[in-house]
Amino acid sequence: VTATFDDEIREQPAVLSRLLAEGRARVDEAAGHIRTRAPAFVVLAARGSSDNAARYAQYLFGVRNGLMVALAAPSIVTRYGATPRLGAALVIGISQSGQSPDVVAVLEEARRQGASTLALTNDDASPLAQAAEFTLPLLAGQEHAVAATKTYSAQLMALAMLSAALDGSPAAWEELQATPGQVAAAISLNEAVSPAVRFWRAEQMVVLGRGYNLSTAFEIALKLKETCGLLAEPYSSADFLHGPVALLDQDLPVMVIAPSTASFEDLEAVIERARKQGAPLLAVSDAAALLAGAETPLRLPPGVPEWLSPIVAVVPGQVFAGALAAARGMSPDAPPGLTKVTRTR
Amino acid sequence: VTATFDDEIREQPAVLSRLLAEGRARVDEAAGHIRTRAPAFVVLAARGSSDNAARYAQYLFGVRNGLMVALAAPSIVTRYGATPRLGAALVIGISQSGQSPDVVAVLEEARRQGASTLALTNDDASPLAQAAEFTLPLLAGQEHAVAATKTYSAQLMALAMLSAALDGSPAAWEELQATPGQVAAAISLNEAVSPAVRFWRAEQMVVLGRGYNLSTAFEIALKLKETCGLLAEPYSSADFLHGPVALLDQDLPVMVIAPSTASFEDLEAVIERARKQGAPLLAVSDAAALLAGAETPLRLPPGVPEWLSPIVAVVPGQVFAGALAAARGMSPDAPPGLTKVTRTR
Repeated sequence: VTATFDDEIREQPAVLSRLLAEGRARVDEAAGHIRTRAPAFVVLAARGSSDNAARYAQYLFGVRNGLMVALAAPSIVTRYGATPRLGAALVIGISQSGQSPDVVAVLEEARRQGASTLALTNDDASPLAQAAEFTLPLLAGQEHAVAATKTYSAQLMALAMLSAALDGSPAAWEELQATPGQVAAAISLNEAVSPAVRFWRAEQMVVLGRGYNLSTAFEIALKLKETCGLLAEPYSSADFLHGPVALLDQDLPVMVIAPSTASFEDLEAVIERARKQGAPLLAVSDAAALLAGAETPLRLPPGVPEWLSPIVAVVPGQVFAGALAAARGMSPDAPPGLTKVTRTR
Repeated sequence: VTATFDDEIREQPAVLSRLLAEGRARVDEAAGHIRTRAPAFVVLAARGSSDNAARYAQYLFGVRNGLMVALAAPSIVTRYGATPRLGAALVIGISQSGQSPDVVAVLEEARRQGASTLALTNDDASPLAQAAEFTLPLLAGQEHAVAATKTYSAQLMALAMLSAALDGSPAAWEELQATPGQVAAAISLNEAVSPAVRFWRAEQMVVLGRGYNLSTAFEIALKLKETCGLLAEPYSSADFLHGPVALLDQDLPVMVIAPSTASFEDLEAVIERARKQGAPLLAVSDAAALLAGAETPLRLPPGVPEWLSPIVAVVPGQVFAGALAAARGMSPDAPPGLTKVTRTR
């Protein structure tokens, strides 16, 4: 029996193609309004997987659109009753269900202050969609597994489409069109992935990324936590190198998110240290040499532009999480202690 | 022989008193200029312990000064060569040594764009101090231990002084005056702390906080990593409750940062779950009932206002990290694989 989690991973190419085809008009409309208002900065309100999409947006809007991104701490509004000045900002709420009351509260306050407000949600009729001036529906179909996959990649895609629409570059849209096919390739390249025996009983893992793919490290670590009960911890390779790298040993496997378009000295330095200290290496990459030296190679198709690579690079991590959950005798669809909609205030 | 790490913990009341007395004129001068320019938002550039000070600032400026705070990803400037628009911002660089090239690069770019720029550093002649228009020297004296203590609390204090100067509230300055004494109390209340035997060989721990004290959870987890080689991971209690809480068991101790002024339902819910699942509880608190139920009580003095509580609440964590390092036969002054100044680009 295939788990729903696995099915939803495989739906991603179709979901992303649909979003590109059917979502563009609303993205262009929102981008037109946003450009007119020329926001001074961007604020993102999100939780869980959506918070990892927000991490992606930090690099996306910073590098491609020259916009600083603040990740809102929703409790500033909901717990402390404060009203930070948001009028000069573009405020984006990201929530699969659109139900998260604290994310909704940030959007309501932002709209009251006259900010541009935008909802990214899979439910066009949700409270979040109603709170925002503009909504980009993810069009991902209902997501049944507790651990998000297709709604996460759709969130990244919607953010990338918004970035392309804001900078008006035709080349960016051409690159976007290739993404669903690259996601399909990432799925088929990893069909045969099988977790090494030593991971079946692993208790912890570190997952390292940098730049655009820091988001990928956070999201894969979250999937491993959610579906396998693994204490998987994400780090920037820079922070890891200047600290916990000393903890690496044969009992602490390390996964690196290392597409060849995104080379970072400190990522390479960590890989070197992992080898020296005998830590098992899992590599998400399209670089043959790195994959050959990894205990578990997780393959990416070549030629994905760095700004879109998080949409593709998360996929082998999702596939691996599903395979590892199965090897550990766990159901990735209904992990203990998790619910689909969180209502944190 | 007392470790330098322990000595520097004990220097904190004197360091904070000196900063309050000798640093105020420069804080007032900077705040006067900043108010004139009315920044639309705040950008913080920092790494390591300083990044945890930035987390504190996110709540501090958000709640007390109505300013949204973006934590800069320095690699957007240094690795991707992008120039996000910073002209409308107050840009604060935080670095003990003032040497971090990527933090310096963000400040240089911000100043070029006409932003208000401010350096928080322990070295008034450092590249960071030279890059910024205003500098708040921490006046903490040289810090010898690799794991920062007195420069961290001095960074928090300097940020709190800036927040008070920006809002011009005399009551805030009165509350600040009480802080060095409360830090002294937090040291003496925990003189006798002795890590339970089960922690001597612990491999991991989770450290939970919320709101203002999310920064404290991150900083104590970092101290435990740096000085004890423990895989200590910080979480927002909200995020932890809606996910990894299922991992808690007798082999995964949990430390909660829970001053009684900062009650959060999800923090209480996690404590309840920890008890049910048999996870050893370490509590940093002034609440007698919580301390009585904790396997390791880490005591705080009562009556610390929530906005200043991170300056005091980090102290029992520092003391515990030193005691645990000693119990594990490690030197907190020279942890393996760490250097005092990081030069990440």
